Amino acid sequence: MANSKYEYVKQYELDDSLLPGCWIVVRIDGKGFTKFSELHGFEKPNDKRALDLMDECAKEVLNEFPDVRLAYGESDEYSFVLGRSTDMYGRRASKIVSLLVSCFTANYVAKWAAFLPDTPLRSTPMFDGRAVCYPLDSNLRDYLSWRQADTHINNQYNTCFWALVKSGKTPTEAQATLRGTQTAQKNELLFNEFGINYAHLPEQFKKGSVVIRRKTMVEVKQRADGTPVLRERNLPTVLHTDIIREEFWQEYPHLMAP
Amino acid sequence: MANSKYEYVKQYELDDSLLPGCWIVVRIDGKGFTKFSELHGFEKPNDKRALDLMDECAKEVLNEFPDVRLAYGESDEYSFVLGRSTDMYGRRASKIVSLLVSCFTANYVAKWAAFLPDTPLRSTPMFDGRAVCYPLDSNLRDYLSWRQADTHINNQYNTCFWALVKSGKTPTEAQATLRGTQTAQKNELLFNEFGINYAHLPEQFKKGSVVIRRKTMVEVKQRADGTPVLRERNLPTVLHTDIIREEFWQEYPHLMAP
Amino acid sequence: MANSKYEYVKQYELDDSLLPGCWIVVRIDGKGFTKFSELHGFEKPNDKRALDLMDECAKEVLNEFPDVRLAYGESDEYSFVLGRSTDMYGRRASKIVSLLVSCFTANYVAKWAAFLPDTPLRSTPMFDGRAVCYPLDSNLRDYLSWRQADTHINNQYNTCFWALVKSGKTPTEAQATLRGTQTAQKNELLFNEFGINYAHLPEQFKKGSVVIRRKTMVEVKQRADGTPVLRERNLPTVLHTDIIREEFWQEYPHLMAP
Amino acid sequence: MANSKYEYVKQYELDDSLLPGCWIVVRIDGKGFTKFSELHGFEKPNDKRALDLMDECAKEVLNEFPDVRLAYGESDEYSFVLGRSTDMYGRRASKIVSLLVSCFTANYVAKWAAFLPDTPLRSTPMFDGRAVCYPLDSNLRDYLSWRQADTHINNQYNTCFWALVKSGKTPTEAQATLRGTQTAQKNELLFNEFGINYAHLPEQFKKGSVVIRRKTMVEVKQRADGTPVLRERNLPTVLHTDIIREEFWQEYPHLMAP
Repeated sequence: MANSKYEYVKQYELDDSLLPGCWIVVRIDGKGFTKFSELHGFEKPNDKRALDLMDECAKEVLNEFPDVRLAYGESDEYSFVLGRSTDMYGRRASKIVSLLVSCFTANYVAKWAAFLPDTPLRSTPMFDGRAVCYPLDSNLRDYLSWRQADTHINNQYNTCFWALVKSGKTPTEAQATLRGTQTAQKNELLFNEFGINYAHLPEQFKKGSVVIRRKTMVEVKQRADGTPVLRERNLPTVLHTDIIREEFWQEYPHLMAP
Repeated sequence: MANSKYEYVKQYELDDSLLPGCWIVVRIDGKGFTKFSELHGFEKPNDKRALDLMDECAKEVLNEFPDVRLAYGESDEYSFVLGRSTDMYGRRASKIVSLLVSCFTANYVAKWAAFLPDTPLRSTPMFDGRAVCYPLDSNLRDYLSWRQADTHINNQYNTCFWALVKSGKTPTEAQATLRGTQTAQKNELLFNEFGINYAHLPEQFKKGSVVIRRKTMVEVKQRADGTPVLRERNLPTVLHTDIIREEFWQEYPHLMAP
Repeated sequence: MANSKYEYVKQYELDDSLLPGCWIVVRIDGKGFTKFSELHGFEKPNDKRALDLMDECAKEVLNEFPDVRLAYGESDEYSFVLGRSTDMYGRRASKIVSLLVSCFTANYVAKWAAFLPDTPLRSTPMFDGRAVCYPLDSNLRDYLSWRQADTHINNQYNTCFWALVKSGKTPTEAQATLRGTQTAQKNELLFNEFGINYAHLPEQFKKGSVVIRRKTMVEVKQRADGTPVLRERNLPTVLHTDIIREEFWQEYPHLMAP
Repeated sequence: MANSKYEYVKQYELDDSLLPGCWIVVRIDGKGFTKFSELHGFEKPNDKRALDLMDECAKEVLNEFPDVRLAYGESDEYSFVLGRSTDMYGRRASKIVSLLVSCFTANYVAKWAAFLPDTPLRSTPMFDGRAVCYPLDSNLRDYLSWRQADTHINNQYNTCFWALVKSGKTPTEAQATLRGTQTAQKNELLFNEFGINYAHLPEQFKKGSVVIRRKTMVEVKQRADGTPVLRERNLPTVLHTDIIREEFWQEYPHLMAP
């Protein structure tokens, strides 16, 4: 073969397999999304269209990769969980991370117009990704709790911050007002100053999004008379629910099952 | 902080920095592109529209990431070269690989319609990626030669294969005809049977695509009288040229410069 | 500093930390011990002096490194188990492996004369080592069971093999005799041909050696009248017992405790 | 096989191969040698017996492992250099590091009595080790220059420090005297206060030790009349010479040769 004298370079590809028997979490993050969201006029503190687009992309990742068991997302990040025993691509980190990122990104661009029809895409949306291994079920639970607690903290802060800014404060003044405040104080501020009951805000903003596969009735065809034929399918579904508490995991025990 | 008891999970993120002082090559590959190209009716053995789209995406990667010095692509793969001394994202493998893949994928979807206007996108184009380190300049040269030699071998084979198939042979018969043939024999077959002079085929098909930055005159504005104002810019440019021979590297010495 | 222009080379030291939260097993193996044991006239199939020396070295490793919870050894290998939550040397693989190997080797040479007083050391005893992570308690149990099952299989085979060789067979004949035999057949052979009841062989040969810390009464000083003063100490102790069965782990629950 | 159900645990052994084509440096360091040297009454600032023992152990490492091209040592550390193209143990980091450390340690204990005959070994000498890859010849040269510059800096400081302490200063006072002093000032202090001409101190202390293989005449047997039969052998030899300057590398070009 004409290229045989060059083929030695393949030996420089080192193995990057992830430890067997661990949960694999791939977390992807938007690159420079503060700027990206300004450029595209995202609503503050939360743009439901942009969040719905993120959720849709995550569903497509679950459609494409059966080994992804569940996903959790907030803002411009999403975490995908692969089962302990997955042998997807021999557990090679770069293969798994790059494909999940690529799938997510492709869908983000492809479905953009459906979610933000009046906003042309003006720059390239990009996501980085990394894989992390967790040995114990409790580690995985704690990881997901960490992300959801983060969602709550960020959302509450941002809701206050943008209410203050929209009311005429500068960003610096808004930050100063919020410095050192606790959860209860922030809720009071929202209610007293702006008439916002934090508890009544959309669950999607407060809890983020969980994507799991769930039995769903789907129309697979129509009869001659036009009545639909339904079948049960196991489809990716988005929930905005508490995944820190035990109840969620009792309701969906297959998520953690061996 | 409410999430402080969960934050220990961050410690599970292990460092995946690439060895300093080495060339970094990130090679990305289309996932399942045999099927993808059939689904979208790509012309065989080469679809110029699809190759141009790949080249355009590679140019965008160079636009986005100044640390990418050059790129080489063929078929559904592209290799991106980062300089020895790059400190892009602390040389973290997953960060670099995922962002390059994400940038490439986003552009592939966003620019699809411009290159294949009559072909709606019917499935999700995805690319995997991996990073490889090369200690010596000669290793990098050999890597790129390996890919370009591969381009030649594949293209010559595919040109014969599809000529045979289009002439009525089954794929199995075409494979049998080509088994064990050398370069000279394949060229003869093409010429004698199909009147194809392999040497006259487009360079893009035979040599693949090299993307480098080159001084280019660009119109930056117009004068009041409508005449353009030109400025020299260092822009990503696609070449279809031999990168195995020494001349290319002598012409662009900055590509290998420290 | 005179050496400041060279100090950049430190950046080439990459992090090799082991995943947090996993059991760490460091297994060390004698290098070329078939030859080493011949050179020093080790008794076949088992030389109790050499095994006792191995056990003594393992005890010293536990004396030196409190994070080593237990050890299991057979023949010329020993496995050391570090707890899930150990932060010994920041869990850096090369640091942990090299120090355990170094400690073991130093003691092997230093204590050689005490265990094989009539045999001068004629070559350098060397051990290689590697670290492996296990996410689950069950993985660690299975690892240790794997090694102990291996001890049994090897010892039974070697006992038969050397009995045949000592009775006049060539090594090749002995191998041929044993090929494909099962446990029961090997025991019959030993009993019928050589009058050896396998069950009566020393537990050290059949079960290998487990080293754990156990409360032990130690003489710490003597009273004026010469009577000893005893204190309870938690000292490394060698057992030759079944570690596959559940009972062992129930008897020493602290070994697996968080 | 009785242990087949446990064998899955072998899959948890991850590959730790070092990048091909790079120089491999394995640096070993004494563990807690400040205390170790006090316990054994090492002469300060340098104990020639202890340094000779280190050098002897390094020679044995070169005797044992032909792939080790050269070694450089100072104080309680030694660096071993393996050639770019070595395939020793498939370039697995833990295998290479552990065996070099084990070989060094075994010899340190075995030869201790020959070098320090009046000093019984009172604690276990231990060395840790790590492997680092260097892509360029210049990186390797800089690494070795870094260590030798370090030897000079440490030795000059320690020579001053111990002269001050032996003259009656406390360690704290000695440190205060030396704080911020430059090379020239330290040399003056040594000469004016203690009559020590730093330039006249042994090269072993000032330059450290380099071990390379060099053609050496060796007596291989004696003739009947008692005259020796000499043969040229390529034997590990210790030099105390400048390895920062170019001349050393010109004199021994094979050290860097491909």
